[in-house]
Amino acid sequence: MAESTNMRLRLPLLCIILEVILIILFGALVEYNDDTHAKLWNANKSHSATRDDYENEFYYRYPSFQDVHVMIFVGFGFLMTFLQRYGFSSVGFNFLIAAFSLQWATLMQGFFHGMHHGKIHVGVTSMINADFCTGSVLISFGAVLGKTSPVQLLVMAIFEVTLFAVNEFILLSMLGANDAGGSMTIHTFGAYFGLMVTRVLYRPNLDKSKHRNSSVYHSDLFAMIGTIYLWMFWPSFNSAITNYGDPQHRTALNTYYSLAACTLATFAFSALVNPEGKLDMVHIQNAALAGGVAVGTAGEMMLTPFGSMIVGFLAGTISVLGYKYLTPVLESKLKIQDTCGIHNLHGMPGVLGAVVGAVTSALASPGVYGDGLQRVFADAETGKWNPQSRGGFQAISLAVTLGMALFGGLVTGFILKLPIYGAPPDTHCFEDGLYWEVKTFQYHFYNY
Amino acid sequence: MAESTNMRLRLPLLCIILEVILIILFGALVEYNDDTHAKLWNANKSHSATRDDYENEFYYRYPSFQDVHVMIFVGFGFLMTFLQRYGFSSVGFNFLIAAFSLQWATLMQGFFHGMHHGKIHVGVTSMINADFCTGSVLISFGAVLGKTSPVQLLVMAIFEVTLFAVNEFILLSMLGANDAGGSMTIHTFGAYFGLMVTRVLYRPNLDKSKHRNSSVYHSDLFAMIGTIYLWMFWPSFNSAITNYGDPQHRTALNTYYSLAACTLATFAFSALVNPEGKLDMVHIQNAALAGGVAVGTAGEMMLTPFGSMIVGFLAGTISVLGYKYLTPVLESKLKIQDTCGIHNLHGMPGVLGAVVGAVTSALASPGVYGDGLQRVFADAETGKWNPQSRGGFQAISLAVTLGMALFGGLVTGFILKLPIYGAPPDTHCFEDGLYWEVKTFQYHFYNY
Amino acid sequence: MAESTNMRLRLPLLCIILEVILIILFGALVEYNDDTHAKLWNANKSHSATRDDYENEFYYRYPSFQDVHVMIFVGFGFLMTFLQRYGFSSVGFNFLIAAFSLQWATLMQGFFHGMHHGKIHVGVTSMINADFCTGSVLISFGAVLGKTSPVQLLVMAIFEVTLFAVNEFILLSMLGANDAGGSMTIHTFGAYFGLMVTRVLYRPNLDKSKHRNSSVYHSDLFAMIGTIYLWMFWPSFNSAITNYGDPQHRTALNTYYSLAACTLATFAFSALVNPEGKLDMVHIQNAALAGGVAVGTAGEMMLTPFGSMIVGFLAGTISVLGYKYLTPVLESKLKIQDTCGIHNLHGMPGVLGAVVGAVTSALASPGVYGDGLQRVFADAETGKWNPQSRGGFQAISLAVTLGMALFGGLVTGFILKLPIYGAPPDTHCFEDGLYWEVKTFQYHFYNY
Repeated sequence: MAESTNMRLRLPLLCIILEVILIILFGALVEYNDDTHAKLWNANKSHSATRDDYENEFYYRYPSFQDVHVMIFVGFGFLMTFLQRYGFSSVGFNFLIAAFSLQWATLMQGFFHGMHHGKIHVGVTSMINADFCTGSVLISFGAVLGKTSPVQLLVMAIFEVTLFAVNEFILLSMLGANDAGGSMTIHTFGAYFGLMVTRVLYRPNLDKSKHRNSSVYHSDLFAMIGTIYLWMFWPSFNSAITNYGDPQHRTALNTYYSLAACTLATFAFSALVNPEGKLDMVHIQNAALAGGVAVGTAGEMMLTPFGSMIVGFLAGTISVLGYKYLTPVLESKLKIQDTCGIHNLHGMPGVLGAVVGAVTSALASPGVYGDGLQRVFADAETGKWNPQSRGGFQAISLAVTLGMALFGGLVTGFILKLPIYGAPPDTHCFEDGLYWEVKTFQYHFYNY
Repeated sequence: MAESTNMRLRLPLLCIILEVILIILFGALVEYNDDTHAKLWNANKSHSATRDDYENEFYYRYPSFQDVHVMIFVGFGFLMTFLQRYGFSSVGFNFLIAAFSLQWATLMQGFFHGMHHGKIHVGVTSMINADFCTGSVLISFGAVLGKTSPVQLLVMAIFEVTLFAVNEFILLSMLGANDAGGSMTIHTFGAYFGLMVTRVLYRPNLDKSKHRNSSVYHSDLFAMIGTIYLWMFWPSFNSAITNYGDPQHRTALNTYYSLAACTLATFAFSALVNPEGKLDMVHIQNAALAGGVAVGTAGEMMLTPFGSMIVGFLAGTISVLGYKYLTPVLESKLKIQDTCGIHNLHGMPGVLGAVVGAVTSALASPGVYGDGLQRVFADAETGKWNPQSRGGFQAISLAVTLGMALFGGLVTGFILKLPIYGAPPDTHCFEDGLYWEVKTFQYHFYNY
Repeated sequence: MAESTNMRLRLPLLCIILEVILIILFGALVEYNDDTHAKLWNANKSHSATRDDYENEFYYRYPSFQDVHVMIFVGFGFLMTFLQRYGFSSVGFNFLIAAFSLQWATLMQGFFHGMHHGKIHVGVTSMINADFCTGSVLISFGAVLGKTSPVQLLVMAIFEVTLFAVNEFILLSMLGANDAGGSMTIHTFGAYFGLMVTRVLYRPNLDKSKHRNSSVYHSDLFAMIGTIYLWMFWPSFNSAITNYGDPQHRTALNTYYSLAACTLATFAFSALVNPEGKLDMVHIQNAALAGGVAVGTAGEMMLTPFGSMIVGFLAGTISVLGYKYLTPVLESKLKIQDTCGIHNLHGMPGVLGAVVGAVTSALASPGVYGDGLQRVFADAETGKWNPQSRGGFQAISLAVTLGMALFGGLVTGFILKLPIYGAPPDTHCFEDGLYWEVKTFQYHFYNY
């Protein structure tokens, strides 16, 4: 008999302990920042006659934050409801680990990104960053979807959020990298972390749950809710934490065109790789989003709509081809069981995005950016800026991210392998009934 | 034989009469406010050189308004689609009574909150307030869901909106209470009003429709759409009508953390109270939202993320325990048939929110708030401000709200008991087929 | 045997060719505008001390853009999922043709609305305009839903977008018409274009697919997601490109009240026209939106909430009556097979909106608008403004739109009739299985 999957003690205990720790740490470390603090916001105002309410960062960032928030909870949550009997877990566990991760990320990112007299300052920008970090965990969730207990997922989140913050610190603070939309920090990191975890958790007998590892008609429609929200709000995601003004505006625009071009590539190649020319919902649900991932680094740069469309088209193409030809090989040869195909949606497009970002950085010049150069490349202000070395640092950032993700996933995978978390047996993967009350009886509709 | 449920004359007649009355009253009483009026907006500009388009309240409030609007129509509407055969009515009647209530609320709130030379002034803030009042009606709808005709619901809305505006006037204008997110005015009022209505409408033979008073797999997923949208946009709800700048920013932040902590408590206690440790969709769909309700009053104050998380955690806990242990008792002992469990989601967390608000008010000091004090506590400006008495007025406000809600619900309940509205018979509660064209035949999918 | 519906070569070839052409044209013609360009945004700043980041058009328009974007992809996409076996195609083809159309519209609108030294300038306003044009194509899609291949739809989009841009140019630039919410340019144009296309594509034997041309229970709930999103965000749609300040604010307000009144009319007449007084989901899903269409022209004017509610009430009424009494006649007498009933939602309400706009324009006066007159009527600035002639030009604009739409639809219809696009045979209309991989086996839920 497999280990018990009963969550009655394990899950409550872990949730309560984690939340109590979070509350204590928040009490000790977290403070309102200047824009959210009753006293400081006003105090600052008196320093400068021109500072007024409309200058509060809330009005520049909050609409973007809400769009990102929708992507995290509805986008990721519903995208994963495509499985026929795993809808409760997809949207429910997504909800749980996101609610935990955003709190933990506030602490970890605050710790690494600069304490203020020993305190972490929070406001709408930290909320967006916490949601971003959460997104990375949810990407990894996609790889292990259906094969893990909620306790395992929370443990994974603890480690992944921590390493995310370390990697982000190395990239943004030490290497001075640009990555506003997170091609590297979010997508590449989350994807390769998750792939390594699922590799370590390899189940040779997963075939026993094969009949549940697919969609039904309406579950595919629920998943499309997730897809469409991710697609629509990706311009907000990539632009949420860029500098105000033209960079934020330009990033949204570039992402919009990249996604549009990506969608045409996705439909084209989905039909092309099918013997009967039929479209595959898996491709439409996922590959059409790759264009957002692939401009996550370069989106704020002068990539131009033209460049964005080329990148988007490429991203959609490699993503569909990945689903069709690479995923089966990863599973059979490398023993990587990737439920949602995150390698195709986040892994390869994330790497592509990092490369595009490095190249676009290396090509940047004052002639193109004018006085706006330092609004995109922070170190341009210091006068020590050199586009070629900037491009080089971007490339190094990708390598660091891959290393951190693979190493972190390896360690985390082995921790998750301990037989104490109530993981589902091979015969009951992709099954809500294990962790949820599910009605066994359904009244038949409308037979009166 | 039960009274006829045919809506052919009753519903059209009521809708048309109500809309005609609304149109006449709007024609007589409603005017654009300064920020929406072509002449006045420009006229004001010339008075002050610094006033410019970006100062129009539209840009401070409209994104929040749209988030609130989504909560009212998608959030409440889909949350209630969990019933297996009542999805059309849940989302459809929600739509109908919300569309009516927001118009009626514009008039009632405008009447009580101060006429301008005999006219009601409207703009984005009045739109938000009308949506808020509508939310209260929809909370009450949750208690009587499945047991009322659309005509009854409209009649309930007429009375509830009116009393809501009176109660709101007493609290905000007479008692000077703080309640930006409506823990008292919206949640406590709506919950106890609805509970009293359903008490008066008690059906001893509701068991005859018991087989329909539960969810099926996909109806629970539709309901999660509602849940997640309510959860995501609650920060916008609580901050929608606070003062500009730091209060709006801070409220969103506090609500964000309260909800996150609440979600962990909800998962913990949902598993804990189940013998097999299985999660219950009812809890996840509802209790995870209690954290938003419980910071509806104190959210704009210097509650800190630490305080918000404690409140959220408590709210989630009492909400799950309420669903598990209190709801059955309310039904069996007090004859309160509360379809959606609004007592657990809005009632108790609303009262908790009122208490938290009173305590946080009583602890407020210029040392903590600095010059921002009067941005939160309006009467601090007059110099007559005293935190302890402020806390006392908050507590009185809660008592007034409970009294108004229970009394109003009692009277309204008896009015709704008249056998003229086409209420469903006990054998056909929770049934769309009574009021909607529903196909009796379903083509079977994909058997070719 | 019917022509092959295999998309393996046709669809990829068309998608790839179109996208390559788009990329080349974007490379040659499209540039960032001043507000999105790193160099120009900063350069402009130095010209004027008062221009600051918050003046970037991004902050005035982007929240509205995202709401419009949701309407285009979720609103239209899910509204059309009501068909029992056509959900993949509804939301999927909607996605495909929208992604294409917004790129093509950027070029066509940019070309007609004024090149800058041979270049098309893009930013958030052009994104909104491109989405608007896309909306028009999706309206036409509603008429031919279920009866066309994706290749046909793309070809339709090529022509419709082009003609849309021409018509918009004539109306806005040559006739100086007001039509911020597109009663004429979007709704009337899209509706009559689509009706003419479906007329030309008339299928006398469509009865063979009749059993699939209806909804099932859950498909109607999916469609309600689309409806509610369209309804909620219509205030953003109509106000997205009006002038800043009071016009944008007022338009949102007017649309809000128009829709609320429309909803009551819809419920009233839906029950009234049914012998048993039962509500019809088709009416609720569609007619409740007509109020948004009908204030698309006059919404920015001083229509007042009173006027808006009258217009909304009328729109809902004629829309329900159209569904009940006119649609069957259009099909049997005029051979217009209008799957979604776009004539009732976009056609008649669009014409109503144009007439209301003409009348409201003709009644405009400096006494009512004050200095705000020229913020609504651009030519009022020149001093040559005359409200009666303005009203006349509005009426001419309607006539031009109808002519362009009918002529364009006629030509496009004949082009789409060529037997080369893989259109579905009469026996397989309204059927996802033709163009999508659909599982033929469904694991039965929860029988353990």
